[in-house]
Amino acid sequence: MQRFSIFGARSISRPFAPLLLVCLSLLGYAATAEEIKSPNGQLTLNFEVQGGVPTYRFSYKGREVIKPSKLGLELKGTTSLQTGFAQTDKQTRSFDETWTPVWGEAKTIRNHYNELAVTLTQAETQRTIRVRFRVFDDGLGFRYEFPRQPKLDYFTIKEERTQFALAGDHKAFWLPGDYDTQEYSTVTSKLSEVRGKMKAAVTGNASQTTFSPTGLQTPLMLKSQDGLYINIHEAALIDYSCMHLELDDKTMTLESHLTPDAVGDKGLIQTPANSPWRTVIVSDKAGDILLSKLVLNLNEPTKFKDVSWIKPVKYVGVWWEMITGKSSWSYTNMDNIKLDSVDYKTVKLNGTHGANNAHVKEYIDFAALHGFDAVLVEGWNTGWEDWFGKHKDYVFDFVTPYPDFDVQELNRYAVSKGVKIIMHHETSGSVRNYERHLEKAFQFMNDNGYNAVKTGYVGDIVPLGHHHYDQWMIDHYNYVLEKAAEHKIMVNGHEAVRPTGLSRTFPNLIGNEAARGTEYESFGGNNADHTTILPFTRLIGGPMDYTPGIFQTKVSAYNPQNNSFVHSTLARQLALYVTMYSPLQMAADLPETYNKHLDAFQFIKDVAVDWDDTKVLEAEPGDYITYARKAKGKSSWFVGSTCDENGRTSKIDLSFLEPGKKYTATIYADAKDAHYEKNPQAYQIRKQTVTRKTKLTQLCAPGGGYAISLVEAGK
Amino acid sequence: MQRFSIFGARSISRPFAPLLLVCLSLLGYAATAEEIKSPNGQLTLNFEVQGGVPTYRFSYKGREVIKPSKLGLELKGTTSLQTGFAQTDKQTRSFDETWTPVWGEAKTIRNHYNELAVTLTQAETQRTIRVRFRVFDDGLGFRYEFPRQPKLDYFTIKEERTQFALAGDHKAFWLPGDYDTQEYSTVTSKLSEVRGKMKAAVTGNASQTTFSPTGLQTPLMLKSQDGLYINIHEAALIDYSCMHLELDDKTMTLESHLTPDAVGDKGLIQTPANSPWRTVIVSDKAGDILLSKLVLNLNEPTKFKDVSWIKPVKYVGVWWEMITGKSSWSYTNMDNIKLDSVDYKTVKLNGTHGANNAHVKEYIDFAALHGFDAVLVEGWNTGWEDWFGKHKDYVFDFVTPYPDFDVQELNRYAVSKGVKIIMHHETSGSVRNYERHLEKAFQFMNDNGYNAVKTGYVGDIVPLGHHHYDQWMIDHYNYVLEKAAEHKIMVNGHEAVRPTGLSRTFPNLIGNEAARGTEYESFGGNNADHTTILPFTRLIGGPMDYTPGIFQTKVSAYNPQNNSFVHSTLARQLALYVTMYSPLQMAADLPETYNKHLDAFQFIKDVAVDWDDTKVLEAEPGDYITYARKAKGKSSWFVGSTCDENGRTSKIDLSFLEPGKKYTATIYADAKDAHYEKNPQAYQIRKQTVTRKTKLTQLCAPGGGYAISLVEAGK
Repeated sequence: MQRFSIFGARSISRPFAPLLLVCLSLLGYAATAEEIKSPNGQLTLNFEVQGGVPTYRFSYKGREVIKPSKLGLELKGTTSLQTGFAQTDKQTRSFDETWTPVWGEAKTIRNHYNELAVTLTQAETQRTIRVRFRVFDDGLGFRYEFPRQPKLDYFTIKEERTQFALAGDHKAFWLPGDYDTQEYSTVTSKLSEVRGKMKAAVTGNASQTTFSPTGLQTPLMLKSQDGLYINIHEAALIDYSCMHLELDDKTMTLESHLTPDAVGDKGLIQTPANSPWRTVIVSDKAGDILLSKLVLNLNEPTKFKDVSWIKPVKYVGVWWEMITGKSSWSYTNMDNIKLDSVDYKTVKLNGTHGANNAHVKEYIDFAALHGFDAVLVEGWNTGWEDWFGKHKDYVFDFVTPYPDFDVQELNRYAVSKGVKIIMHHETSGSVRNYERHLEKAFQFMNDNGYNAVKTGYVGDIVPLGHHHYDQWMIDHYNYVLEKAAEHKIMVNGHEAVRPTGLSRTFPNLIGNEAARGTEYESFGGNNADHTTILPFTRLIGGPMDYTPGIFQTKVSAYNPQNNSFVHSTLARQLALYVTMYSPLQMAADLPETYNKHLDAFQFIKDVAVDWDDTKVLEAEPGDYITYARKAKGKSSWFVGSTCDENGRTSKIDLSFLEPGKKYTATIYADAKDAHYEKNPQAYQIRKQTVTRKTKLTQLCAPGGGYAISLVEAGK
Repeated sequence: MQRFSIFGARSISRPFAPLLLVCLSLLGYAATAEEIKSPNGQLTLNFEVQGGVPTYRFSYKGREVIKPSKLGLELKGTTSLQTGFAQTDKQTRSFDETWTPVWGEAKTIRNHYNELAVTLTQAETQRTIRVRFRVFDDGLGFRYEFPRQPKLDYFTIKEERTQFALAGDHKAFWLPGDYDTQEYSTVTSKLSEVRGKMKAAVTGNASQTTFSPTGLQTPLMLKSQDGLYINIHEAALIDYSCMHLELDDKTMTLESHLTPDAVGDKGLIQTPANSPWRTVIVSDKAGDILLSKLVLNLNEPTKFKDVSWIKPVKYVGVWWEMITGKSSWSYTNMDNIKLDSVDYKTVKLNGTHGANNAHVKEYIDFAALHGFDAVLVEGWNTGWEDWFGKHKDYVFDFVTPYPDFDVQELNRYAVSKGVKIIMHHETSGSVRNYERHLEKAFQFMNDNGYNAVKTGYVGDIVPLGHHHYDQWMIDHYNYVLEKAAEHKIMVNGHEAVRPTGLSRTFPNLIGNEAARGTEYESFGGNNADHTTILPFTRLIGGPMDYTPGIFQTKVSAYNPQNNSFVHSTLARQLALYVTMYSPLQMAADLPETYNKHLDAFQFIKDVAVDWDDTKVLEAEPGDYITYARKAKGKSSWFVGSTCDENGRTSKIDLSFLEPGKKYTATIYADAKDAHYEKNPQAYQIRKQTVTRKTKLTQLCAPGGGYAISLVEAGK
């Protein structure tokens, strides 16, 4: 028998052989090889315990995606869960369901996989874990499961040691691994080049903690030299620390690297418990990565009984004017303030406060006139004079407006116009303070007509020692979601951890930032190819509140001292409403600017924020993406295309349209001489009648793109 | 001029001399010596800036208490506030007020001091601090004040460098300095012996973090070889880290050592701010230390407008039976539980759960029969099966009773008997979890008739990295006091930081543990001299919930497996109600035991818990203490005496009694052959008529004492 091979030809006295067999089995020297395939048979997952070490590999159409890779966890102060294992049980099943998201890119989502759950026993410790693999047609998910058992009640993770041994020196679209920020520009390079490019990749941020010259973030997008697209991320990050990837650039093996807490621990687990899912999406077509619902599917269905209060939102806001420096969040120019010691009614105003009654009413009027659902107002509450960078504990109270912001009057006015005001809770990273005020703050929202909040975690986490992505903070973000749900409040979390498909479980999580958003166009700019990458990386976990729609691409027009410019043509700003999927979409520019371009603005007014269907017409990460999406409950479609700094000619056919119907296509496109830097505002709008047989050829300027609305003729 | 002496005979060209004068002054080379005295003229505080370093000294009746000692703070990442100072202003004032505490040892308290506030400017940084000294007849208080100023808004303390240079190798009553516990036995030794005795002094605790072989806690009680009694502590610990003392055992200089947070910082300060007061109480009479109200006086008057809901409490409780192991806090013998996953209605009971309806009613009946105000019930709420030592976050919810504890029925029953139930909130150190549930837990108390809570912080603080005494936790304890006050709830904080007189500001803080309490008599025992020391150390900061009244001194009588015994005679257990001042006094033993000794129990029934006057009749730390106290609003007095393991004869006169009145003295005393170890329950009770001219001679057995009630004849 193979399992005896390690003993060679040595004879074993007969009476002891059965016992030895048991022992060997428990010691993990029994090599039981398991294999499951995806429902379509094209993806294969293999698992075996090799020399006591759980090992898996993963292939796509016979091509290696993940070479044999180790699984396990290093524990603190006790025997690690890495070696000495034997497979003691296995279960397989097939699963196929179709579920309906509360909001999303498609009306329904199919969750179809074959599953293998292997039980592994560590004889030395009498501990048992399970590894559960799910193989979908679009990739692999697996997690560790820690059943309740006498010898494993509580344990502390020193490090998770999950490997992803890649088959080559792939092209990677990567961000520096960081415990506190994801707001970096994506670097595109071979994996072997990561180390050399890391230093330049780590640009400044309000809070940042890199950990390795080869540390990377997820979702990590890869492309092999033979054209396989691979995406590695995690799903259902609950009560666990956020995973990074540590690259061994000699072997091209990635290994999990969890975010530590204040004492360097990487997670306290009480059994029974499961790790988040580790995900590998794979295809030989780039568009399949974009369409994958694997991460969502690996999350639990929501337990919310009533979801009627959760609705996609298109909004404007008192925001970009502060981001550009045209106006201010703060009401005065004081510094060093203590909230309880300032009488704002007697202080000298700075004259630049954006969130004042008259100005907010202008936004409400604009929103109402153009059919927007809501107006975000930042800088409405006291404390903005002294909110950042000091590790201040009691930084905001979340319920006290500045004297020139009349909560009740503004909400009365908003209601009269059929518009909601979106609440803003910047925490400045001071999470105990936020939790202390959370219940009152949410009740205040209920009392004053707010049904959505944008949260912010700018700066270091207070108390110091914690990181934005450690287990303690993960718990915080999810706590906020739960408490918000109790108050029927939707949450858009900025500077929170990157999403991992949790919106399936908590559909009130309607947005996250967790990447470099449009705000950076005012802080020096985003790369021209930024929006051709984000859907392959950040958006794999969930929607992003990217805040597109900047028509005035020169920031100096608002603030002469700011020479940043938006690295995009105006036409592409329209396309982003389609390419950057989110149920929460902002028209981020100022009403005064939109009023100068009402023809182009029409697309933002028309475009849907919730969809019955989504197609990827063409895509290549870092180069271009063209989506078509069908508006929820309507026959209209919307197309958006974004391309990199090189420009291109996009050729698409409209075969996704319904047979036998005619559509009026309104095409919002770059003018021939448009250029994201030299001539960003040159756009043209044309209309034509199309059918599903129409083929369109459309120029995309460098850093440009186009948007198309397709409305059934006569509707 | 003296200030030019450093230049010797060198000539200075005339035009630059005035400028130089200014510079020198700013650089701190101007030696302005300041002196203030106590109102009675016997205590003297001297201050001067020596070579740029703020320096003070302190004397009592011409005898050095604190030799020249440096003041200052070491800051993180910026110039420290230690050197380069010049005195740039000073203010003096005299203050005399008499205030009325909500509860206390006397009806009124006189707050009488002379004050010196010196303003110190650091030329290099353009920063200014103040040191404010208050000299009372019984000692010194001083603090740092950090005014609001452009160059000092926020700063992080690396260490406070306040010195107390002692005049000799004093006898000290000390505990090992520890960031997480005060539950040590006091060691009595010379300061020079601390280092050698430290290792043995550090006994095990549920959470402990010692930091130095010569680190000590406050209140630190000292006695000089020439008979001066000195006590060093702090007052008004708010938004600052708790102070320890680091002993330099070559120079006999103590230096402040603050408790660090999770990243090693010792406090984040936002100006304007003040440090807590550093206090030095001094007298040549030991009793004066006990009577000092200096620490209370240095706290701010309460801002509570209504204090009618704050009342002293005499109580019994379902507690000692768990401490001894006779019954259990937990309801089942399960381990590793998750609160949300257990259905307590279906689990198997362990049969030892103390807080069951029938048993609690027995306590209520007993309390009502004997005139107690309240019954503490621990172990009433779910989670006790798995509450400790795992750094569990969600450990209790503070509102869910075990199935056999009917909150509404028991409170209805208690109300019908005129008794309150005292709530118990054990946090297991998981403070985020407690704060998350705090509002609901307090509302639950309001809804169910509770008006007082005993809080607990057993085990390491969660999140890990924090310490029981760091600034973040100090803020937590005070936050709980504030929130409790909003709900008119009184707080008795166990394992919280040692009190610093905060009950003047927060009179709902009616008790603290923060030392080795009676519970340790069941965990191996307290030293026989323990209660002759605590009033000189721990009680200097505020009352202690010592839980006296153990009549069954052999723990094995309740739990055969526990061989601990109470290191006290029964008679002394009575004396503790007088010697261990607290507005919250427990009769900690079991009703079944009290029922066997109803004659002695009568003293506990009679003794007051609030006082109009207090006298120390005799005292020597570590040897004996005899107090007389006059009951609030009554003519009765109560005397209590405790002595160490040697026993003694106590001679007291009753001249504190009102002239011309006769009193019936009931004397509860050790029998002649009583002994804390060999014969603890041997007591005798006698009555005699006394007047203020009576002198009493009373034997105290080893580890014994006596209690006397003095009731005006005919009343």
